[in-house]
Amino acid sequence: MNIGVFGSGMVGQALSARLAGLGHAVMVGTRDVGRLLARTEPDGYGNPSFADWHAEHPDIQVGTFAEAAAHGALLVNATNGGASLEALGLAGAVNLSGKVLVDIANPLDFSQGMPPSLFVANTDSLAEQIQRAFPDVKVVKTLNTLTAALMVEPERLAGGDHTVFLSGNDAGAKSEVAALLRSFGWRDILDLGDITSARGTEMLLPLWLRAWGALGTGLFNVRVVR
Amino acid sequence: MNIGVFGSGMVGQALSARLAGLGHAVMVGTRDVGRLLARTEPDGYGNPSFADWHAEHPDIQVGTFAEAAAHGALLVNATNGGASLEALGLAGAVNLSGKVLVDIANPLDFSQGMPPSLFVANTDSLAEQIQRAFPDVKVVKTLNTLTAALMVEPERLAGGDHTVFLSGNDAGAKSEVAALLRSFGWRDILDLGDITSARGTEMLLPLWLRAWGALGTGLFNVRVVR
Repeated sequence: MNIGVFGSGMVGQALSARLAGLGHAVMVGTRDVGRLLARTEPDGYGNPSFADWHAEHPDIQVGTFAEAAAHGALLVNATNGGASLEALGLAGAVNLSGKVLVDIANPLDFSQGMPPSLFVANTDSLAEQIQRAFPDVKVVKTLNTLTAALMVEPERLAGGDHTVFLSGNDAGAKSEVAALLRSFGWRDILDLGDITSARGTEMLLPLWLRAWGALGTGLFNVRVVR
Repeated sequence: MNIGVFGSGMVGQALSARLAGLGHAVMVGTRDVGRLLARTEPDGYGNPSFADWHAEHPDIQVGTFAEAAAHGALLVNATNGGASLEALGLAGAVNLSGKVLVDIANPLDFSQGMPPSLFVANTDSLAEQIQRAFPDVKVVKTLNTLTAALMVEPERLAGGDHTVFLSGNDAGAKSEVAALLRSFGWRDILDLGDITSARGTEMLLPLWLRAWGALGTGLFNVRVVR
């Protein structure tokens, strides 16, 4: 399947590599392709540059947000939450129209330092903001409660015996995304309901960040025991 | 140990019965003892009245918030979140002073219907509000992420193989509360850090409420898989 992945950071890279490895034709969408590929220094966390990563994944195309949106039959929002609405605006409503958008972004606000708070929460969510801005896009929130490595390879932890959540208004879109998640190795996929239930998974982030601090690793997840 | 439990609802009843069963001398604190004991009809959910419950637990004392606070060497806040600060004010700062307060309340706001939102979240929490209002009380947030039956009997689910969280500023108080949790049967107690980490567990409620709806039961919990 042709898939457009918005965002060139660690989450976008993890998703793109996994999807390409599964045989999908992936295009990463970014604001400025030339600038992205010209940057060769590691990021602030010591991760290799996108250019270095891309040299190891030559099968993955790189384009503007609009080009990636036009390319994809299915789209993934892996941009920073604070930039998501702008990135999707650059992608263009006409290129997004009618498509499934897997929204992985979290509305993290780092402006007051660590740990971040959320710039939208409680009575609204980033997923709902996106759904309202692009009413004919089928937004499905998922994978936003995990570190990137586990999103695409759940078996790396406890043989995959943990939970991923799903929120969205369109049942068909959720089925399609659930099938994609199963192809990553996910077995416990909990459908929470419509897109307003994304408030719940986005609001898990503050707990996730504290648990990360307490455990000293991001390689953990919750399992919903029932 | 003498323990004062603020709140006569399902959470207060579950905690009080369990603590009394473990040999503690429990006093339930309420606003108006006479009115509480005079009410004999079931609550809106069909649960028996406090008076009926109390008839089966005659060893548990009932007093005002202030009497329960004076009684307890350790205190439990099991009031509705929206009434917690007022209840603790009625308990009286002098009666609370220097004591460990196990805070189980959640800042649920039902004013806009179901599912409730939170009346404080993201950059503050109910636990922090309580800690600020009573600076020399040792507030420990825990058990607020579970249904009452599982709080006090974790073995009822998956043999107890799931997680409870702990937040608080005082290491000694957290040790004391962890020992109490172990006496309930808890084995996986994750200390998230200082009282500001209670934002994380209070903000788990929106996800909990959606999972409750999706699963059709409150008898579930998360396990932090790591």
